[in-house]
Amino acid sequence: MLPLHANAATKLEDLFQHIDAHQDDFVQSLKDWVAVPSDSSDPRFREQLIRMVQMTAERIRTLGATVQLVDMGLETLHGGQTIQFPPAILAQLGNSTDKATVCFYGHVDVQPAKKEDGWKTDPYTITEINGNLYGRGATDNKGPVLAWIHAIDTYIALQKTIPVNLKFIIEGVEETGSPGLEELLKGHEEFFSDVDYIVISDNVWLSRKPALTYGTRGNAYFFVEVESGKKDLHSGTFGGIIHESMRDLVYLLASLADTAGHILIPGIYDDVAPLTEEESKLYESIDFDMEEHKNNTEVNTFLYNTKEEILQHMWRYPSLSIHGIEGAFAGVGTKTVIPSKVIGKFSIRQVPNMKIPVVEKLVKKHLEDVFAKLNSPNKLKVSLEIGAMPWVANVDDPQYEAARTAIRKVFGVTPDMIRDGSTIPLARTFQDLTKKKVIMIPIGGADDGEHSQNEKISRSNYIQGTKLFASFFLELAKLHEDLQKKSNSNQVKISQRIRSQT
Amino acid sequence: MLPLHANAATKLEDLFQHIDAHQDDFVQSLKDWVAVPSDSSDPRFREQLIRMVQMTAERIRTLGATVQLVDMGLETLHGGQTIQFPPAILAQLGNSTDKATVCFYGHVDVQPAKKEDGWKTDPYTITEINGNLYGRGATDNKGPVLAWIHAIDTYIALQKTIPVNLKFIIEGVEETGSPGLEELLKGHEEFFSDVDYIVISDNVWLSRKPALTYGTRGNAYFFVEVESGKKDLHSGTFGGIIHESMRDLVYLLASLADTAGHILIPGIYDDVAPLTEEESKLYESIDFDMEEHKNNTEVNTFLYNTKEEILQHMWRYPSLSIHGIEGAFAGVGTKTVIPSKVIGKFSIRQVPNMKIPVVEKLVKKHLEDVFAKLNSPNKLKVSLEIGAMPWVANVDDPQYEAARTAIRKVFGVTPDMIRDGSTIPLARTFQDLTKKKVIMIPIGGADDGEHSQNEKISRSNYIQGTKLFASFFLELAKLHEDLQKKSNSNQVKISQRIRSQT
Repeated sequence: MLPLHANAATKLEDLFQHIDAHQDDFVQSLKDWVAVPSDSSDPRFREQLIRMVQMTAERIRTLGATVQLVDMGLETLHGGQTIQFPPAILAQLGNSTDKATVCFYGHVDVQPAKKEDGWKTDPYTITEINGNLYGRGATDNKGPVLAWIHAIDTYIALQKTIPVNLKFIIEGVEETGSPGLEELLKGHEEFFSDVDYIVISDNVWLSRKPALTYGTRGNAYFFVEVESGKKDLHSGTFGGIIHESMRDLVYLLASLADTAGHILIPGIYDDVAPLTEEESKLYESIDFDMEEHKNNTEVNTFLYNTKEEILQHMWRYPSLSIHGIEGAFAGVGTKTVIPSKVIGKFSIRQVPNMKIPVVEKLVKKHLEDVFAKLNSPNKLKVSLEIGAMPWVANVDDPQYEAARTAIRKVFGVTPDMIRDGSTIPLARTFQDLTKKKVIMIPIGGADDGEHSQNEKISRSNYIQGTKLFASFFLELAKLHEDLQKKSNSNQVKISQRIRSQT
Repeated sequence: MLPLHANAATKLEDLFQHIDAHQDDFVQSLKDWVAVPSDSSDPRFREQLIRMVQMTAERIRTLGATVQLVDMGLETLHGGQTIQFPPAILAQLGNSTDKATVCFYGHVDVQPAKKEDGWKTDPYTITEINGNLYGRGATDNKGPVLAWIHAIDTYIALQKTIPVNLKFIIEGVEETGSPGLEELLKGHEEFFSDVDYIVISDNVWLSRKPALTYGTRGNAYFFVEVESGKKDLHSGTFGGIIHESMRDLVYLLASLADTAGHILIPGIYDDVAPLTEEESKLYESIDFDMEEHKNNTEVNTFLYNTKEEILQHMWRYPSLSIHGIEGAFAGVGTKTVIPSKVIGKFSIRQVPNMKIPVVEKLVKKHLEDVFAKLNSPNKLKVSLEIGAMPWVANVDDPQYEAARTAIRKVFGVTPDMIRDGSTIPLARTFQDLTKKKVIMIPIGGADDGEHSQNEKISRSNYIQGTKLFASFFLELAKLHEDLQKKSNSNQVKISQRIRSQT
C-alpha cells in the first residue's frame, strides 16, 4: 500500500479538475437551497425552515451517511405562543479507526430578506452578476455547507477513498442564537466522543486574502418594549393628550450609546479583558487595507483611524447596535399614527470576559433607571432574546497548521490569522462542552454582505472553497498519520521501557 | 304647488323608511369599496387607488350626474421617481336656479393597513361584529361618501325631487395631504362659482352624541433621514467601527419633544393664538366624558386631567407625534443588522396662527443644530412631506343651523359644537380660495379608530348618517327658500324705492 500522502499528491489534481468541471452543478445546488426562505427569526417561515432542514438531511444521506434528525422541542414566541423548532441534523460517514474524525458544523437557516429592503435581485433566487452569486444565505451559510458536501461528493465521484471520517452537525436556528444546541451537545456525548476536529465555515475573510479565524464575539440581543395602550391612535384626533410610546422609546434608545460608539450602560466595560502588549502586537502583522474595507462596507468614515483600533473594535471590544423598532410605522410614505406598543431592538456584541447574566442585569437596570426619570405611565418591558458567548482558540493547534497548508495548495498564499466580530455560538459551546479542537475556515469574501441586502458569494470563492475543503481532508489525514506514527513510536518506546524494567 | 317644507314633512318619513329597508344593500356597497386597498401613501397600491377613484366616478354617474375626472399630474416620490397621481372627481347633479347648490367633499384613499399590524379581521374585508363594520376606510372616508350617495339614491328611488342641486369633489390623496387640490380649485373657479355650501364628512363625533365640527388642525409631516453608507451591514462583522445611522436618528427624534408632550423645537409656540377668555368658556359646555374617551382610546392616563385641557390640547394647541422609522428592521424576531439609511417620520399638528413655512424653517434649524452637536460624518436630510393649514369656521352661519335641525330630526338631540384635532386640508383651502361656506358634518362614532387597526363604522351610524344627509338636503332647501323670500322682499322694497324716486 502506498503511503497516504503519496496517493494524496495525485488525488489533489484530479479533485480540483473534477470540481472545476462540475461547478455549474454546484451553483445549481446552491440555487435550489437559496430558493427556500428558511428565515428562522420569523415564525411565519417556520414550515419552510423545517423543509430546508429535511432537504439538507436528504442531501447528506445521498453521500452514504447515516443521518438522524434530532427533535429540538418547542420555541416560545415573544407573544407567549409556542411553535416547533426545526430539528437538528447529526450525521456520520465512515468510522475507520485509523482515520481522523472531523465534524463539520453548519446552519441552513437565514436572516430575514425582502426585495423591498433594497435588494437588486430577488433574495430567494440565486442571480449571477459579474461572477457573484446573489441570494440570501449564499455565503451565510448555505454556500459553505454545500461546498463541504461537494468536496465529499468529489471523492465519491472519483471513487477515491475519503481520507477522513466525517460527521455533521447542521442546525436551523443559528441566526436566532442557536437555542437548544447546548442541550443537544450534552445529550449526544457519544456522538462527539470520537471526533478529533470541529470545522466551522460560517464567516468571511478580512480582505481578498484567504484567512483562518481563531476568535468570534458573542451577542446579547435585547427587546425594549414600551406600551402606551391597547391600540394605535390617529395623531390628529389624539395627538397632544397621549403619553406616546415612541417618545419614551427614542429616549431609551438614545441613552444606550454615544455617537462615538461608546456604550453608555454603566459597568458594561468592567469585564472586558485588558489589551496585553503581546495581543497588541498581533494586530500589527495583519494584512488589512482600510480603504478596501471602506469600499466593502460602502461607508466614508470609520469610528477609528488606525488599522489596529479598527481590528480591535471589530474583534475584541463590545459594540452596541440599534437594529430597529417593531410596532411603529415602517413603510414608505406618510402614516399619521400614534403607535401603541413599540419594541426597540438592539444588541451588544460580547467579548472575553463578559458574562451574559451580568450584561443582562446591567442593561435592564440602566433602561429601568432612564425610564424612571421619564415619569411615564407607560409600561416598560426589557428582555434578553439572544445570549451567546464569545470564543477564542489557540492558533498553534495542529488543525490550524493543516488548514494553512491546504490554503497554500489551493490559493498559493499563507492565510491571515484573524478573528471575527460576529457570533457563531457553536464555537464556544463546542470548545466548552466537548473539549474538542475547533477551527474556523471561512471561504466567503470580505464583501459578501452576510445579513445585508444583496448577500452573495462569488463563484470563485464558492468553487475554490470546495477545493480547499477537499484539500483539507488530505492534510488532516497526513497530520493524523504523523500523530499516529509519533504515538506508535511512543508506544514502542514505552514497551521498550516496560520490557527493560521487567 | 305645495310649499317645499310641507312636502318635506311627508318625505322625511318615507326617506327614513326606505333607508332602513335598504340598509343591507348599503352595507354591501361599503364592502365592495373597502375591498379595494386604495392606500395613497404607498406607491405600490397606486393602480388600486386609481381604480377606486374610477369606481367612485362610475357610481356617481349612476345617480344621473355629469362626472369629470380631472388629471392631477405626476407625483414625485421620495427617491426621485415619478408616478401618476389618481385623478380627482368633479360632478354635478341638478342646476335649478331656484335651489341651493351644495357641494360634497370626500376622499376614497385610505391609510395603510396590514393584517399583521394587529387587525382582528382582514382590513380590506368588511366584517360585521356586534353591530360594527370593521375595515380600512369604513369611517375614513368611504362610509360617509357612500352615505351621501345613498341619501341621494333614496330620493331617486322614491321618485322624489331632490331638494338641492348637488356637486361633488372627490379626491384620492387626502391621506397624504391633498397635494394638487389647491391648483384644482384655482383651475375650476367656474365649477365652484354657483356653490352655496361645502359639506365635509371626514371626521368623527367626540362622544356618543352627534356633533358638528367648526375647526380642524393642520399638519406638517417631516422626514428626517440619516445615511451612514450605501448598504446595511452585519452588526457582528462591523459593529464597533461604524457611525451607525440609527444612533444619530434616535438622538434626533429624542430631541423633538419631552415626555410631558411639550415640543422642544425653539420658537414653535410663538405663533399659536393665545387662549382668550371667550374661547376658554366655549369648552365648559361641551359634553365630554373623559372616562369614555379613555375607554375609546384604550389608554390609562392622558397628559392632562381636566376636560378643558384635554379638549384644548386636542383642538387648539400643536402636538408632535413620532410615527416610526423607515429603513430599519421592523419585523418580528431578531435581525442583527446595522441599517444604512433610516428615515424618521414625525408630524406636528398645526393650529391658528402657525405658518407652515415658519414651522418648516424652525424644524430644519433645530434638527440641523442637534445634528451638528453630534459631530457625525453621516448625511442628514430633513424634508417637509405634508404641509396642511388649520381651519376654523363661524358656528352662527346658516348651514350650521340647518345641520343642527337635521340632526335633531334624526337623532332627537342638539349636537355638540366641536373641533377636530385631525386635518382635512380642503376645509381651509375651500374657505380661503372659494370664499364659500364650509360645514363639517361627521357621522362616525368617537370609537371608530380611523387611521388605527380595526377601523370601523357602526351600522347604526352609517345608516343614521344616511338619514341625516337626506334630512339635511330638506333643511338646506327650506333655508334657501327663506333666504330667497327675504331677498325677494328686499327686491320689492328696492323696486318700490326706485319707483317712488322716479
